[in-house]
Amino acid sequence: MLKSGSEHLESLRDGRVVYIGSEKVDDVTTHPAFRNGARSMAAIYDMKGADPALSFEENGERFSAYFLRARTKEDLSKRTSIHKAIAAMSHGLLGRSPDHVSSFVTGMAMNPEVFKGFSENLKRYYEHMRREDVYGVYAVLPPQAARNPEFYQTRNLPVPSLRVVKEDDAGVTITGMKMLATGAVFANEIWIGNLLPLAPTQLHESVTCAVPVNAPGVTLWSRKPFERHAPSEFENPLTWRFDETDSMVMCENVKVPWERVFVNMDAILAREIYIRTPGHCYGNHQSNVRFHAKMQLIVGLASKIAHASGANEVPAVREVLGRFAALEAALGAMIAGQLHDAEDWPAGFKCFNRRYMYAALNWCTESHSSIIDALRELLGGGIFQMPADITVMHDAKLKQMFETYWQTPQLGAVERMKLYKLAWDLIGSEFAGRHLQYEKFYAGASFIVRNHSFREAPWEGFHKVVDDLMGTYGIPAH
Amino acid sequence: MLKSGSEHLESLRDGRVVYIGSEKVDDVTTHPAFRNGARSMAAIYDMKGADPALSFEENGERFSAYFLRARTKEDLSKRTSIHKAIAAMSHGLLGRSPDHVSSFVTGMAMNPEVFKGFSENLKRYYEHMRREDVYGVYAVLPPQAARNPEFYQTRNLPVPSLRVVKEDDAGVTITGMKMLATGAVFANEIWIGNLLPLAPTQLHESVTCAVPVNAPGVTLWSRKPFERHAPSEFENPLTWRFDETDSMVMCENVKVPWERVFVNMDAILAREIYIRTPGHCYGNHQSNVRFHAKMQLIVGLASKIAHASGANEVPAVREVLGRFAALEAALGAMIAGQLHDAEDWPAGFKCFNRRYMYAALNWCTESHSSIIDALRELLGGGIFQMPADITVMHDAKLKQMFETYWQTPQLGAVERMKLYKLAWDLIGSEFAGRHLQYEKFYAGASFIVRNHSFREAPWEGFHKVVDDLMGTYGIPAH
Amino acid sequence: MLKSGSEHLESLRDGRVVYIGSEKVDDVTTHPAFRNGARSMAAIYDMKGADPALSFEENGERFSAYFLRARTKEDLSKRTSIHKAIAAMSHGLLGRSPDHVSSFVTGMAMNPEVFKGFSENLKRYYEHMRREDVYGVYAVLPPQAARNPEFYQTRNLPVPSLRVVKEDDAGVTITGMKMLATGAVFANEIWIGNLLPLAPTQLHESVTCAVPVNAPGVTLWSRKPFERHAPSEFENPLTWRFDETDSMVMCENVKVPWERVFVNMDAILAREIYIRTPGHCYGNHQSNVRFHAKMQLIVGLASKIAHASGANEVPAVREVLGRFAALEAALGAMIAGQLHDAEDWPAGFKCFNRRYMYAALNWCTESHSSIIDALRELLGGGIFQMPADITVMHDAKLKQMFETYWQTPQLGAVERMKLYKLAWDLIGSEFAGRHLQYEKFYAGASFIVRNHSFREAPWEGFHKVVDDLMGTYGIPAH
Amino acid sequence: MLKSGSEHLESLRDGRVVYIGSEKVDDVTTHPAFRNGARSMAAIYDMKGADPALSFEENGERFSAYFLRARTKEDLSKRTSIHKAIAAMSHGLLGRSPDHVSSFVTGMAMNPEVFKGFSENLKRYYEHMRREDVYGVYAVLPPQAARNPEFYQTRNLPVPSLRVVKEDDAGVTITGMKMLATGAVFANEIWIGNLLPLAPTQLHESVTCAVPVNAPGVTLWSRKPFERHAPSEFENPLTWRFDETDSMVMCENVKVPWERVFVNMDAILAREIYIRTPGHCYGNHQSNVRFHAKMQLIVGLASKIAHASGANEVPAVREVLGRFAALEAALGAMIAGQLHDAEDWPAGFKCFNRRYMYAALNWCTESHSSIIDALRELLGGGIFQMPADITVMHDAKLKQMFETYWQTPQLGAVERMKLYKLAWDLIGSEFAGRHLQYEKFYAGASFIVRNHSFREAPWEGFHKVVDDLMGTYGIPAH
Repeated sequence: MLKSGSEHLESLRDGRVVYIGSEKVDDVTTHPAFRNGARSMAAIYDMKGADPALSFEENGERFSAYFLRARTKEDLSKRTSIHKAIAAMSHGLLGRSPDHVSSFVTGMAMNPEVFKGFSENLKRYYEHMRREDVYGVYAVLPPQAARNPEFYQTRNLPVPSLRVVKEDDAGVTITGMKMLATGAVFANEIWIGNLLPLAPTQLHESVTCAVPVNAPGVTLWSRKPFERHAPSEFENPLTWRFDETDSMVMCENVKVPWERVFVNMDAILAREIYIRTPGHCYGNHQSNVRFHAKMQLIVGLASKIAHASGANEVPAVREVLGRFAALEAALGAMIAGQLHDAEDWPAGFKCFNRRYMYAALNWCTESHSSIIDALRELLGGGIFQMPADITVMHDAKLKQMFETYWQTPQLGAVERMKLYKLAWDLIGSEFAGRHLQYEKFYAGASFIVRNHSFREAPWEGFHKVVDDLMGTYGIPAH
Repeated sequence: MLKSGSEHLESLRDGRVVYIGSEKVDDVTTHPAFRNGARSMAAIYDMKGADPALSFEENGERFSAYFLRARTKEDLSKRTSIHKAIAAMSHGLLGRSPDHVSSFVTGMAMNPEVFKGFSENLKRYYEHMRREDVYGVYAVLPPQAARNPEFYQTRNLPVPSLRVVKEDDAGVTITGMKMLATGAVFANEIWIGNLLPLAPTQLHESVTCAVPVNAPGVTLWSRKPFERHAPSEFENPLTWRFDETDSMVMCENVKVPWERVFVNMDAILAREIYIRTPGHCYGNHQSNVRFHAKMQLIVGLASKIAHASGANEVPAVREVLGRFAALEAALGAMIAGQLHDAEDWPAGFKCFNRRYMYAALNWCTESHSSIIDALRELLGGGIFQMPADITVMHDAKLKQMFETYWQTPQLGAVERMKLYKLAWDLIGSEFAGRHLQYEKFYAGASFIVRNHSFREAPWEGFHKVVDDLMGTYGIPAH
Repeated sequence: MLKSGSEHLESLRDGRVVYIGSEKVDDVTTHPAFRNGARSMAAIYDMKGADPALSFEENGERFSAYFLRARTKEDLSKRTSIHKAIAAMSHGLLGRSPDHVSSFVTGMAMNPEVFKGFSENLKRYYEHMRREDVYGVYAVLPPQAARNPEFYQTRNLPVPSLRVVKEDDAGVTITGMKMLATGAVFANEIWIGNLLPLAPTQLHESVTCAVPVNAPGVTLWSRKPFERHAPSEFENPLTWRFDETDSMVMCENVKVPWERVFVNMDAILAREIYIRTPGHCYGNHQSNVRFHAKMQLIVGLASKIAHASGANEVPAVREVLGRFAALEAALGAMIAGQLHDAEDWPAGFKCFNRRYMYAALNWCTESHSSIIDALRELLGGGIFQMPADITVMHDAKLKQMFETYWQTPQLGAVERMKLYKLAWDLIGSEFAGRHLQYEKFYAGASFIVRNHSFREAPWEGFHKVVDDLMGTYGIPAH
Repeated sequence: MLKSGSEHLESLRDGRVVYIGSEKVDDVTTHPAFRNGARSMAAIYDMKGADPALSFEENGERFSAYFLRARTKEDLSKRTSIHKAIAAMSHGLLGRSPDHVSSFVTGMAMNPEVFKGFSENLKRYYEHMRREDVYGVYAVLPPQAARNPEFYQTRNLPVPSLRVVKEDDAGVTITGMKMLATGAVFANEIWIGNLLPLAPTQLHESVTCAVPVNAPGVTLWSRKPFERHAPSEFENPLTWRFDETDSMVMCENVKVPWERVFVNMDAILAREIYIRTPGHCYGNHQSNVRFHAKMQLIVGLASKIAHASGANEVPAVREVLGRFAALEAALGAMIAGQLHDAEDWPAGFKCFNRRYMYAALNWCTESHSSIIDALRELLGGGIFQMPADITVMHDAKLKQMFETYWQTPQLGAVERMKLYKLAWDLIGSEFAGRHLQYEKFYAGASFIVRNHSFREAPWEGFHKVVDDLMGTYGIPAH
């Protein structure tokens, strides 16, 4: 089934409990902190529904293309295409759009045996997600505070990190906190799990399961919503529509039926389900494609800013623009390479080249800050020349002065301000600040990304290069 | 005379015309966009008045120490001390505090002959500033748009950049736009001039003069004021009090009496007054000291953040902290070096070592983004775990959950959130975004800073090192 | 025809004039400055001859695969494969191996119309090269000194840069200097041309032609040959065999028959032949593949060095190794992407994706120094602990001490020294120093590479991203 | 006593055992691998002797200024001056010139109580060094291999790292290897100790003592000496004279009398003697000053290279030069700052500001590679245009061609080649490669330098900045 946008919005009016500080949100689809974000998500559903290239048929039913378990390179391309379409709509500013966690689950459904006794649950959950066109997000990290369980035990306090507190025939009961459910406010279900290694003894925390956002006992604690603080669409066009939100997930005795449990009492497996299946790779291929769309917005803005002052005629600026274009193309090439050198894995399926995917992920994590910094250099101090807001156009005298004095040979005053405000929303607003922070951690801290790269590297092959070379000569004769 | 803080606030209620978009501000000292910024400025005056070390006596009158024309190293140290005191109050977040432009003018008053026929004006203006304890700011750049005067002439439009449109016995009449009067909202007077080279033909634009902020025909067009958008002091403690504001200065037939004119019809001199006097060096020594105070806040935050999660016990994190401390000390050393190797210039006076000052300026411009980026790495994703705002403490149930689940062994929930919010206001808020942009341009684009360094470098000495070495050997004999 | 290695060596004994300083080299295949380099080149010919996958058949003849004008993706892959095979043999240390300039000429032969009246010459030269299995190199830059022709004219001196000094029925006569004929000592022919834009008036310098290395009047002035200074293969295994050499080409009244002239008296065309044909892209795809082979040696060395001291068990070192692997994979992905998104250009042919190729080139140019620097960090001071040379093994007492004291739990003393010496030859020897310099300039200075990227970028598409976004909202209503 | 240069050379003919591979060196002052290095060291002694400003008098005797225990800022300045004079002679290329270890010992002699029972030995050794004008070097690191003592014990092999193997009334007997005695070939005595922390159980390795280079049982194993491989002074002017050499020190049952033992059987103290006295700071202040002299050569070369092609007229190149000058001035300022903010420590003495010293050390360690890389960019490919060697001037025909074709409007051919060869010896020769490696490790790996910075930082002060700020506001009222 392919949901429409309005169906998706309707599905969010489900009694979910969302807090902004102490304010309880009644309806996320109409609340001024979330309504435009919700619409952006809904638009994805409408786009998908309208373009058959973004879905596929299986057993007579149609599913969103990000649920496709690829058996051919064409299938992989189809996956890349839907990620591109979604990322293009949001300019790469939605890290956890509906295609992210769905790709994880789809990848896992290609190798469900890994789940041992829970493999049927996983398969059924995959069927459920695609059939209902579920928007799933995840909360797969313990709260920062949870590193020191003894502290809590000594003081007789609840350990904050989410864990199973009871098991019975119906299922498990979970309590505690999990972070960081980006997009949860706009989603249907939350995948709860552990992307980082657990200690072997953290058995109760190893639970991996799915819960509806409106499940009794679930509350979402939103970080400051930036959309609410955007004075207008003109001032903050990106904040206005693309604040995907982040929430802490708090569970108080939430009951999860067995059929939604995928790992239990197995600290090693809790992590391995992602990397022993294409789950992690499918999910993070979306991250690569998403970042690429952002690069295109960045390159476009860089060039438009240069044109706004005529700086595009300056050789040194053209070199800078050429470099921006080279960076965009580098990532584009790394994505294409993942298709070209796709892996036959697991048996009968295709996976994007994992080493290339992690290489691209590392590149994104390493490069984002300095790319934005280069855009800052191009932008210069011009942004601070702009009036506080565009209401200057509502006063006849100010309007006339503004249009006269703020225009350039290249651009009218309003268009110039519009361009600068857009750029600022990518560079300098609080929304931009969150992206600068988050691009460092979307895929885990940089050392985590590099550890993935380490794990997948063919070390024997690399050693052989050196050994073969050294094997051809010895100690020279006396 | 040393003004009190309340006297300074009173002086700002002078009928000045300030726009926030189309809104005309009645009183900057009470308006929610500016009141706390105004108080921060006033606090500087109170602090100065209370500590005799921050002022000096000449001819029986007391003046703020930043008006001191240094004749000894002790005098220079006194200057450095007042900059440190002011920067410590504002953690280096006020780039154009009252000691910045005053230092320019003081430096110029040490070599007034450079001003040729206007030298008496300059000396009198210096006397006026220090006697009235004037808070002066400057607008010394043309609007970005003004690079192409032909465009305007062909279309019969006013060229936007400020220029003299009339001269008579009383003085000059100026019209046009000048950027970027940081702090003007809180200041008494604006120094108008040209810090960048003009074309030799830009005679009418070469005017350098001082105008009161409330002069008839002067309007300030503020960029978006961040203070107004800070939900509370707890959420944005820095935005709340240290938004120094930026404004475009618009002049419509503003009359400037001859006694306030310092350069006229001399495109070369308009620029040289800053660098042929200690003006530029005195002013930018303040920039060095200001940045150093910011470094101390950064190092303190880095360490507190590490302590908040116990990460300070991790060797790799200690190395990072050691590096932060090394960066702070590097700048501290560069400032101390300016005193140690002070110059005897101009005759009878002392100036900070100019090469060292520009070296420090280059270091700040080059390093700021990556220093903040290193702080981002330390902060991690923890900031997004925090509730949207501290109102969670106003609801009994939420308060209890928050205090229980958000605490760490190292820190209570409220203290932790307070620390993260403070860090975020330096890293991720819009106020932070403006600083990331502005530190690149406070002293002009990086190439401008390096050109200053080029100009002051002893190239003959450097060449001699090479020549002497090469002079000791020749072509080997056959 | 596919030459054997010994045939190629034989072809180098042709009377060519090569100078090392004032020493005239009799036979480059036996001279201690060049003999091992010559053998490395010969080995490429033997490898090619032995593996049918590295050649192709056309009209009943077999040619080296780098002469293949690709009509399908499989053809392109075949090209990539031979580059990989050659680069693997030399670990990416031969920038101008026989597949480099051949690829240029092959690319040009896919669109010979660009050559206007000389198109038949170009086609015939391509036939000649592949039929004779010619090793061609190029000299396509003016000497640095030649920027200021007036200087020479005023002083009545010959302008140094190569130019046509006479034309007659037989052809053109050329005189002057051209740089930098890397590999020429080991090659058969030199392509002379202009890779950088000429002034429109530099008509006589615009000559593009091919000359045999042993043509009367041609002399090669070699830079210091490093092979000669390598004490032994054990000390400098890379210098020993992979010094590809660089030479200035000096022509004194060299006669070039018309059939070997490809551009004459056309300053614009002289440059455009490379970029209006796949020449530049085919040639520099080889550069990408070559660098990738070097990356594999680097990653292998990094890991072996870490293992030599047991540092590979340290998490921070594993992260560093993971990053090295990610960099290797990033370039691998960028190369694969060039195949995946190959272009249908020119009509009937296939070309590697040009934007991706330039992106990879930019990545290599930007990254090489810091990659080697990271390897330096890993290597530490251990290299300087090694004895001056391996002759310590020739003295019984020293041998015993060396084997006892220099071993580690991980590695015997000799193996350890062998590994460190190899690494040093990539990092610290003069051969390494030349690579550090040359990787910055192999494809021209970084601004040149970025200008290529600028030229090929789809700016309208990038602008459209911004325009479409800005088109969806306007000034908010009053 | 102040030794003359020839006295110093004479002192090196003392029967010392130095190996180059298996070659035993008879006389380091005449051997082609060391003779010019020896002369450079001797020249330092002659310079010192000739300039009274470089020595001081105490109790009627004259001593080299680097033995001065500073009691005033003027004393500190005198120390800085002699470092500058020595570094200027060698352009900062001698890391372990005679003023390095002497400064360590002098610093230790300012707080000898730290040495507990051995304090008199230390004082007497200081007296001995300055009275005999001893050139001391040090070997204060264990061999890399020594990290895993169990390996050796299990296999019944001698543990490689130097240790006491016997104690008796006369003193201790030491056996084993210590690294890395830079300069030892040219020195009189070797300080043996432990600059890195030992495990508390490494009692026998904790020995700290001084041994003459010619002590029975001491052998020096030199790394490859670069001087020997320099074809001529013209080709490698820096290698020719400034290869300070590195050696492994091998001790076989070397007897050290008690009066030359400074630490024994105390693993903690072995390290603390450097940092609980001004030893480490005095020694590394020399490192700062030394690097500064190198910066001056670099800046001079950068400018000369730009002038050699006329590139100094290009604005972008001037910016680059301005940046080089800013870097040189930054370090100059950091050195001056260490004097300005000197510490009163230990009681009655003066020490350079330690935090600033470590900040400068960190700056040097972090910056060297990228500074040299920037010089590479400036140099371009021009170096490879040069003939293999200057013997072209010995052949009339080649000489004429060389002078004609290699000259530029700015520079004659020989002068141009001379300049490029000099630059190459700083950037690309093997000597340069060793410097690129060594600047990373002269003061220990970067994390070690940062740990010093961490140790000396006033964390409470930094925390107070944050705490005071956070103390001024709380949770806003409901």
